[in-house]
Amino acid sequence: MKPKRVRDSFASMTELVLPNDTNTLGNLMGGRLLHWMDIAAAIAAQRHSNRVCVTAAVDFVDFKSAIRLGEIVILEAYLTRTFNTSMEIRIDVYAENMHSNERRKSNTAYYTFVAVDQIGRPIPVHPVEPETDEQWAEHEAALRRREMRLILAGRLKSEDATLVKLLQA
Amino acid sequence: MKPKRVRDSFASMTELVLPNDTNTLGNLMGGRLLHWMDIAAAIAAQRHSNRVCVTAAVDFVDFKSAIRLGEIVILEAYLTRTFNTSMEIRIDVYAENMHSNERRKSNTAYYTFVAVDQIGRPIPVHPVEPETDEQWAEHEAALRRREMRLILAGRLKSEDATLVKLLQA
Amino acid sequence: MKPKRVRDSFASMTELVLPNDTNTLGNLMGGRLLHWMDIAAAIAAQRHSNRVCVTAAVDFVDFKSAIRLGEIVILEAYLTRTFNTSMEIRIDVYAENMHSNERRKSNTAYYTFVAVDQIGRPIPVHPVEPETDEQWAEHEAALRRREMRLILAGRLKSEDATLVKLLQA
Amino acid sequence: MKPKRVRDSFASMTELVLPNDTNTLGNLMGGRLLHWMDIAAAIAAQRHSNRVCVTAAVDFVDFKSAIRLGEIVILEAYLTRTFNTSMEIRIDVYAENMHSNERRKSNTAYYTFVAVDQIGRPIPVHPVEPETDEQWAEHEAALRRREMRLILAGRLKSEDATLVKLLQA
Amino acid sequence: MKPKRVRDSFASMTELVLPNDTNTLGNLMGGRLLHWMDIAAAIAAQRHSNRVCVTAAVDFVDFKSAIRLGEIVILEAYLTRTFNTSMEIRIDVYAENMHSNERRKSNTAYYTFVAVDQIGRPIPVHPVEPETDEQWAEHEAALRRREMRLILAGRLKSEDATLVKLLQA
Amino acid sequence: MKPKRVRDSFASMTELVLPNDTNTLGNLMGGRLLHWMDIAAAIAAQRHSNRVCVTAAVDFVDFKSAIRLGEIVILEAYLTRTFNTSMEIRIDVYAENMHSNERRKSNTAYYTFVAVDQIGRPIPVHPVEPETDEQWAEHEAALRRREMRLILAGRLKSEDATLVKLLQA
Repeated sequence: MKPKRVRDSFASMTELVLPNDTNTLGNLMGGRLLHWMDIAAAIAAQRHSNRVCVTAAVDFVDFKSAIRLGEIVILEAYLTRTFNTSMEIRIDVYAENMHSNERRKSNTAYYTFVAVDQIGRPIPVHPVEPETDEQWAEHEAALRRREMRLILAGRLKSEDATLVKLLQA
Repeated sequence: MKPKRVRDSFASMTELVLPNDTNTLGNLMGGRLLHWMDIAAAIAAQRHSNRVCVTAAVDFVDFKSAIRLGEIVILEAYLTRTFNTSMEIRIDVYAENMHSNERRKSNTAYYTFVAVDQIGRPIPVHPVEPETDEQWAEHEAALRRREMRLILAGRLKSEDATLVKLLQA
Repeated sequence: MKPKRVRDSFASMTELVLPNDTNTLGNLMGGRLLHWMDIAAAIAAQRHSNRVCVTAAVDFVDFKSAIRLGEIVILEAYLTRTFNTSMEIRIDVYAENMHSNERRKSNTAYYTFVAVDQIGRPIPVHPVEPETDEQWAEHEAALRRREMRLILAGRLKSEDATLVKLLQA
Repeated sequence: MKPKRVRDSFASMTELVLPNDTNTLGNLMGGRLLHWMDIAAAIAAQRHSNRVCVTAAVDFVDFKSAIRLGEIVILEAYLTRTFNTSMEIRIDVYAENMHSNERRKSNTAYYTFVAVDQIGRPIPVHPVEPETDEQWAEHEAALRRREMRLILAGRLKSEDATLVKLLQA
Repeated sequence: MKPKRVRDSFASMTELVLPNDTNTLGNLMGGRLLHWMDIAAAIAAQRHSNRVCVTAAVDFVDFKSAIRLGEIVILEAYLTRTFNTSMEIRIDVYAENMHSNERRKSNTAYYTFVAVDQIGRPIPVHPVEPETDEQWAEHEAALRRREMRLILAGRLKSEDATLVKLLQA
Repeated sequence: MKPKRVRDSFASMTELVLPNDTNTLGNLMGGRLLHWMDIAAAIAAQRHSNRVCVTAAVDFVDFKSAIRLGEIVILEAYLTRTFNTSMEIRIDVYAENMHSNERRKSNTAYYTFVAVDQIGRPIPVHPVEPETDEQWAEHEAALRRREMRLILAGRLKSEDATLVKLLQA
């Protein structure tokens, strides 16, 4: 299959935090943001594959700062690499200060999606073709993230003691 | 602060997959499940801390099998360990076959929450006291998952090449 | 058809009261709670019958105390008795005080569901087999509640004057 | 307090059954209808009392026929009688056949609401003044329904055996 | 096709403004009201045509006054005229002051709907028959509004300079 | 007040049409789209004014083609001109064919918003400064659209006969 450009998958989503999205302190709930990130990633995956796409995995997500009721949230998603039927998507989330328009980084996350046919069976997708240095860097790093994912999905239990010791070395 | 038992944080949530929760193939959307997991974890954290709790991090989540419209989803959450103001919660997700009542494991995930006061500042929480072998095992493993989280949150970029090589060793 | 145990229908649902669930005073709306009770009952009915189940009737529901924004609500549902194609489900609702973890009883209600086939026609369900004294008591009382339901559904108008006089005697 | 007319509380609600309101067979879920009935009743109660009103009780509700995706649902609610701080509201629900515009009766239900002040304490409401024969009949019957409610809320357990025997006599 | 009466399309919708419907100031969001108006109009159009109806156009809508959390909103919709496969619907929106029950006019709008068959192709609808002077006035004015719509949809750009000059004359 | 650039108000929103957004034919409901357009416009207005903004008016909106379940919808909004306390926002809506990624234009609309203070009173906003030819053209045309709006809001009834005759000339 012919490669498609990274930029053709790019999706930009903007949301306004409304009462329905907040906890009792008036802050955006983490679960709502994870849901928005899933939709942004699904759009990028669908754009690349021209297929219905389903979530296969979510990597570690870190919530750095509270996002307030009434603030604007920006989600930017694009494909980094494909692996036969699966696609890794990077999502960057920003929150915008209402009074200064200043954007602060809220999260970066990697979601993995699989393209499926009408009865839900995985189908191969086009490879993705990076064009910029940053896209190439993400494309390379995607290989290592994928290995990490395979370990976490199946072999973490037996090896994590060793792993963390090595990580700290 | 006096420790509280793991079992006092235990939360069991059951959901029925309705049309509003599904994608165009009639499968539960990953983002919706992440949202439900966040609520189950928030309930466990609130039970332990008696405070409003906010999502601080989500570890790797792996979506093994599609969950269908009309199926029953069970989420079970409990605290594994606390770290001053933060709490790690384990969430196990099961889907139930409508015709056989057979439960299949869908996901296990670890969410981290922080207890906050009325203006959103983190506040210390009681330690948690395991009672069973399984609870002790999770309590121990929580330390290593936390170290992994610190690395992923702040130092992954420079070290991931090494990390994955070691992981594969 | 072979009987199934009461406990196999047991469903436990936990919900966190969010802004979207409340009225303008910040209390859980009665209609929202009735909706959650309907879902809890539907899950118990589906577990017993392995069929899509639809609401046939709701008995008297009494809202004893306000449930506040941020509180945890627990719904526990199980089958008490079946009547050919219909099933009576008991639902107990509790609210949990955020600061003391104390549970207070909010409601008990009985919903009746019917199992249906793919075009919506009622179909027979397995009988249910009580195992504990409490389950047997509910099983017996279900007969009388059913008679009451038949009266209320069809013959209340002409007889209610007599009925209430007798009730007060 | 000066009486207000029944007709001043009258509320007419029309809803279109959308995918989000249905179960997996494409029928309106019972819980959703109970929620709509609660809102219709709340509007009638608020109109009468000029206060925030909260659900106190729901009498027996009987779901006679399935309502389909795409059908129009009409809810008509009005006050029948007041009891110091509480109000009984009758709600009639109709479904409209899409092709013939024929209305079929779906349910009649009685909800009880309480008017509350800004911190949720019950406050007295105006009496209601019937004008038509039907309104007077409902006004009278409300007394008996209230007695039934008091019995069901507090004394049913000990007396139900007797009650149903008498009902069957 | 035989004409049908205007009054047979009449739809009355009542909504209570809940937290989920408001912006951060506690006022009903304009977008939510536009959504409710669309549903009211769809109901009127479906009643007239006995078909699924889809939105074709919305005329100028003017939001005169803020509607507050907890207020009651009334929407009244009816058909004014049909044009082969399309129908013009007038929607009047009122808000009701909670303390005085006084209704204030919020908006009047005209939505255009098209009746479609099961694969979405437009199909002819019955003409509508006015009975009152007001209905006749709306029926007549609908012709002119339609001409305006055709201009706005297709030819506004080239002519708007002239148009506004003439309007001001 | 110092002018701000048009581009600083630019908001790009991407949505995936899910079951909850569609009518019984599986097409995006007009009311849902109007709601999304309102949010996109609110974001652009809030970015320009750094204030909470409320919808004041919606100009004619024309729904050209059905948007299907599963399709991607793109909304692009930016400020065209300000009028003391009010702002005109242009919103362009596109739908993306799932298989070809081809974008088709769905709508263009103009929403007017007002910036308000914490108790809802209108407050003056910065002027907006166009930079491109297209932005200047919109800025100019905004004056004429505003005059049209004033006529439609207050003086249409008496003059529409004349208006449409002239428009047709």
